Parts: sequence; C-alpha cells; structure tokens
Amino acid sequence: MTTNGSERPAQVQQRTIISVDAMGGDRGPAAVVAGLVDSARADADLAFLLHGDESVLRPLVSQHAEIAGRCEIRHAPRVVTMEDKPSQVMRHGAGTSMWSTIDSVKNGEAAVAVSCGNTGALMAVSMIRLRKLPGVNRPAIACLWPSRNPGGFNVMLDVGADIKAEAEDLLQYATMGAAYARNGLHLRRPRVGLLNVGTEEHKGRAELKLAHDRMTAAQDAAEFDFVGFVEGGDIPSNRVDVIVTDGFTGNIALKTGEGTAKLSSDFMREAFASGLLSKLGALLALGALKRLQKRIDPRRVNGGVFLGLNGTVVKSHGGADATGVSAAIRLAAQLARSGFIDRLAARVASAGRAGQDAAVEGGGQE
Amino acid sequence: MTTNGSERPAQVQQRTIISVDAMGGDRGPAAVVAGLVDSARADADLAFLLHGDESVLRPLVSQHAEIAGRCEIRHAPRVVTMEDKPSQVMRHGAGTSMWSTIDSVKNGEAAVAVSCGNTGALMAVSMIRLRKLPGVNRPAIACLWPSRNPGGFNVMLDVGADIKAEAEDLLQYATMGAAYARNGLHLRRPRVGLLNVGTEEHKGRAELKLAHDRMTAAQDAAEFDFVGFVEGGDIPSNRVDVIVTDGFTGNIALKTGEGTAKLSSDFMREAFASGLLSKLGALLALGALKRLQKRIDPRRVNGGVFLGLNGTVVKSHGGADATGVSAAIRLAAQLARSGFIDRLAARVASAGRAGQDAAVEGGGQE
Repeated sequence: MTTNGSERPAQVQQRTIISVDAMGGDRGPAAVVAGLVDSARADADLAFLLHGDESVLRPLVSQHAEIAGRCEIRHAPRVVTMEDKPSQVMRHGAGTSMWSTIDSVKNGEAAVAVSCGNTGALMAVSMIRLRKLPGVNRPAIACLWPSRNPGGFNVMLDVGADIKAEAEDLLQYATMGAAYARNGLHLRRPRVGLLNVGTEEHKGRAELKLAHDRMTAAQDAAEFDFVGFVEGGDIPSNRVDVIVTDGFTGNIALKTGEGTAKLSSDFMREAFASGLLSKLGALLALGALKRLQKRIDPRRVNGGVFLGLNGTVVKSHGGADATGVSAAIRLAAQLARSGFIDRLAARVASAGRAGQDAAVEGGGQE
Repeated sequence: MTTNGSERPAQVQQRTIISVDAMGGDRGPAAVVAGLVDSARADADLAFLLHGDESVLRPLVSQHAEIAGRCEIRHAPRVVTMEDKPSQVMRHGAGTSMWSTIDSVKNGEAAVAVSCGNTGALMAVSMIRLRKLPGVNRPAIACLWPSRNPGGFNVMLDVGADIKAEAEDLLQYATMGAAYARNGLHLRRPRVGLLNVGTEEHKGRAELKLAHDRMTAAQDAAEFDFVGFVEGGDIPSNRVDVIVTDGFTGNIALKTGEGTAKLSSDFMREAFASGLLSKLGALLALGALKRLQKRIDPRRVNGGVFLGLNGTVVKSHGGADATGVSAAIRLAAQLARSGFIDRLAARVASAGRAGQDAAVEGGGQE
C-alpha cells in the first residue's frame, strides 16, 4: 500500500502497473486522473505511475481514496504540447511527462504506457527510448474500428505512424495486426485484408500488388487468413478482421469514419429534437438510443496501440474525457496481461525467418 | 413529339437532352427507365436519348406514357459489364451502350451523359471519345458529400479517376472543383481545402506541400478561398466547400464514409427494433426519422461528375434504383443548363494562363 518509490508496487502487490502521462491532453490532468479513478474502481489489480507536475497532481490524486494507495506520482517539470514538433521533442524531450512515462516502460517499472499527448511526439519519443523490435522497419499505430464482426470491432493499421509504407512494411503490419487481433480481440486466426481502390487496373501503386503476393505467401506461417484487397466500405464489415494500409491512407480513413459517425449522430439528435412527437418518441426509445450511442461511441474504442517497439504504448485521443482515458487504460491492461509484447516479438522474428526462407527458395527457383 | 432520329428533339422542343446508358447497372434497364419516368414527371423540360438493347428497352419505355414522346431509343447491341477491363473497353467498346451514350455528347446531340456502368470503363471511353480539355493532364471524378454546410453538401475530388496526382494535377482539381461548386452548389467563391494528415512534419508527400504553395498563389485568379490543409474529419464540415485529394485517397475516403454512414443507420434500425417501447418511440418519431433518412440517404447525392473532359458525364452508382438514377439525371440537367462545361473550360484555360504568368514572374525573380 506504499506509494514510496523505493518499493516497486509491481513486486509487492502483483498488480499490473500502467505508466500514465498526466499532461498533454486537451482536457488537462483532471480528466486523466478521473480516468484513473474509473479504471481503479473497475479493476482492483491495477496500479499507476502518474507522470507530470507534482504540485498539480498531488492535490488531484489525494481527492480520490480509490487511487490513493495505488498511484505513485513521478514529477516531471515539462510538458509536450500539441504544437511541439516531433523532431524537437526527440532531441530535447527529457524532463517532459511524456518522456518520463515512456522511460518507466523502458526500465521495466511499468508493463505499458498510456498518453493523451501529441501523437507524432509520442511516437518519436517511443522510438528513441524503446527502440524498434529487431526486424521491424516501420512501427505502426493500430486502432479498433466498430464493425459488424461478432466481437464488434476490427483492427486497422497503420493509422498515422508513418505516411509511407513499402510492400515489406505492409507485410509486417499484417503480421503485427494479426498478433494484436489475436491478443486484443481473441481471434485465433484473424482475416487480414489489404486496403485498395476498387478499380481493376491500378497503374502505379506497385507496392500494393507486391504486398498482395507477399501476404498470400506468408499467411500460413503467420497464422492469418489473407482475404486479398478490401475497399473503404469493408472497413466496418464482417469480411475482414485486420485492415492493412499505409499511415497516410489509414489516418484519412480513420478521421473520415469518425467525422461521418459524428455527422450521423448529430443529425439524429437534431431529428429527435425537431418536434413534440419526435421528442416523445425519443423518450420512449431512450434505452435503445443509449445502447446505440454506446455502440458507436468512439470513446469506447479509445486507444491507438503502437506496434513494433520494445514495449507497448497506448495513445489515447487528445480530447479524451474520463471515459476515454479509462477505455485506453483498460486496453493497456489487457495487452499487458496477455503478454502481448513477447508474443508480438516472437511473431515478428518468426515472420522474418519465414521471409528469409521464402526469399532463399524464391532465389533458388529463379 | 416525334421520336424519329432524323429530327433532333433539342432543336424542335428546346428541351434539355440527356444521353442515358440503360445497361450496365446492377439493377438492369428497368431501374434506369423507372428513373427516367421519375425525372420526366418532375421536370417537363427534359428529354432523353436512351442507349441499349432495343428489344428490351422498347417494351419498358412503352409502358410509361410520361416518357413515350420524350425518349428516343438508340439501339446498341453490346453491354459493358462490371468485370470488363477499362483498357479492353477502350479498344473494343464500339457497339456498347456506354460508347453510344458518350458519342451522343461528342456529336452534340445531347448536353450531358449519364451511366450506371463500370466506372473505370466509363472514364476510359469518355477520355477516348470526348478527349481531355486543353490544358488538363488528369481528369477527375467529383462527388457531393453530405455536410454541415448551409447547402448541405461539400464537393470532393478526385474520388477515383486516377490513383496518382502531382501538385499540378491537384491545383487543377482545385480549379475544376471550385467551378463545379459554383455551378452545382451556387457558391460564388468556394472554400477549397487540401486533404492531408494532421501531423506537423510530413516526410515525403512533397507534392502536397508544393500543391499547398500553388493553391495559395492561384486562389485569387481562380476565385476560390484556399483554407489550407484539411483532415478526414473536415470532409463533412462547414470549414470547407471543396476537398482536393488524389483519386486513391479520395476513393478510400468516399467508400469509408459511405460504409460508416450505412453502419450507423443499420445500428439505429436495430436499436429501434429492439423492444416494444423502442418500436413505439420510432413510430412517434417516424416523420423525423424519415427526414433524417433522407438527409443522409446516399441516393440523394448520387452522381460522380467527370471533370476535365470536352463534355459532361455523370456516373451514377452501379446499384442505383429509380430514386438514385433520377438524382443523377437531375444533377446532369442542372449542369447542362448552367452551361457548366463552357465555364469550366474557360476557368481551366485562364488558370493555365495565370500559371504561365506566375511561372514567368517567378522565373524573373529567381
């Protein structure tokens, strides 16, 4: 029950330790602390390392008995803002709460890190402190997408770690995305699709055709089913579990989907507010509408996971409130407990070996 | 009132003549003819050239008194299917209803063409028969997107004519998209945004930075306001009227948006069917729900417009029903009547001259 840094909560209490960046989100540290409180209530086996300005955090934390004994504050005097450039933060980020949050994963104090801060900076700091997994060229950010699948979600990656991806990177995204779906969505043999446009003839985009061939060859060794090219309309479908694309396209698709869902729900709200009968109807259907809201609530699936690093980092939405932060923490805890990072490393290593074997065989045939 | 081909209905009746491909849609010619009937009822000044198998079309058309005197059938024995490759159709497409539909615009018999057929093939046939406007390198497909704008729609292009676009092409899309918004949405000085991801530093994608500079320089001559980079979430927003992107990204965004809107409305339907109170609530709110459905109904905005050719072609959804076909025809008629193609050609020509002037000035300063 100590919050003294000299004893590691992980060893004393066998709790899952989450390293949390209290600063850098749009709603400030109060929203993050409120998210911790929600998480602590829901899950007795969580403990937190909370990074940020101690003079701000101490009073916030002390208001909540639920986390008083399970939350150790790590003072970090500086904050990465949404305007800071990743390259700057990479060079001069020591002393920020973000840097400190990642370092707790690097030195083994915490199993996983969560931050609401600047995505580009978080990826830059994660890369430089945690380093890439052996064999990974480009790390990726994977997100969950509400879908018609029985589990309710699909995985898409990359949604913004890097704006480019070669065929080799896309193959690695497939391997890593399938590992994530296995651990995060409990799918034994995920279906993987490669995002493309529907035209028969795609002049250019040679990397997609090449990636198509590589994924077809790799699917058995990597234990996924490759369903081939999928289109934007398939992202929320039950045709596929993991959608692979480059970070430029993935980011545009993610934000377009979020924007469209928001538009639909705003229009719906306006429709129900448009007259007495509609209001009465909405009142009667309140239970159903609340379930609907929950089903398409982006806060429920809050958390982009950085894949391909020596450590797990969950990026929460910058605008996350307590519900959003707590969803990101739940996801982080789940990945920590499933031993995800070790499994992922093993997958990437074995895919690398399979790739080499295939290259050797291919070379022999030529 | 003659349907005899020797007299041109346009000259006799001063009607707007639409050339319509009756074949190649997923629902067959009956859906297309039903769409003509809806359009003819709503608009007394329309007449049609209908292309396809006469033995199939004649009985369909003769069932409807509304179009009997306003619809001339042009027999075309062959059909372009969804599986046909654009390059094949380009070489061997003569005799298909699609080819014949475009030719009626080429030879001046009709003001505009509408087809539900294979998009790639339709673009290929349109390119080879109508030819590109002088100064246009890559034609584009523009679509309307339900939005928070006062008019209810934004324009996005390219949504799939070509998977690549250089800075010069993107600038041309801005000019053409703005012209379309001026004629199609009645906006005097449309706001144009360039689709990008939100990160501060975009390694690579040099064409976007270059296009950003070119659009900033061109906005006054081309009479649009350039709002800079926009993100996926801005597509349905009131920040922008015209969203410019390459055809790969635009196609993914379009289909992702459609897929997400469909998912939201399916989830909503399930929610209202989930219990007695919900059903009763839905019944009371029926009027509001119907207006909502109409507001987000993709059939209402059915019609991708091909920009950059010597003639206007409207591509209707392959799966369009009578309502969808009639929406595409309404859009086609509006563009024909506004003299859109002449205005567009003038814009492209003047933008080309402005670009040359700028290049000369720029060259002088260097």
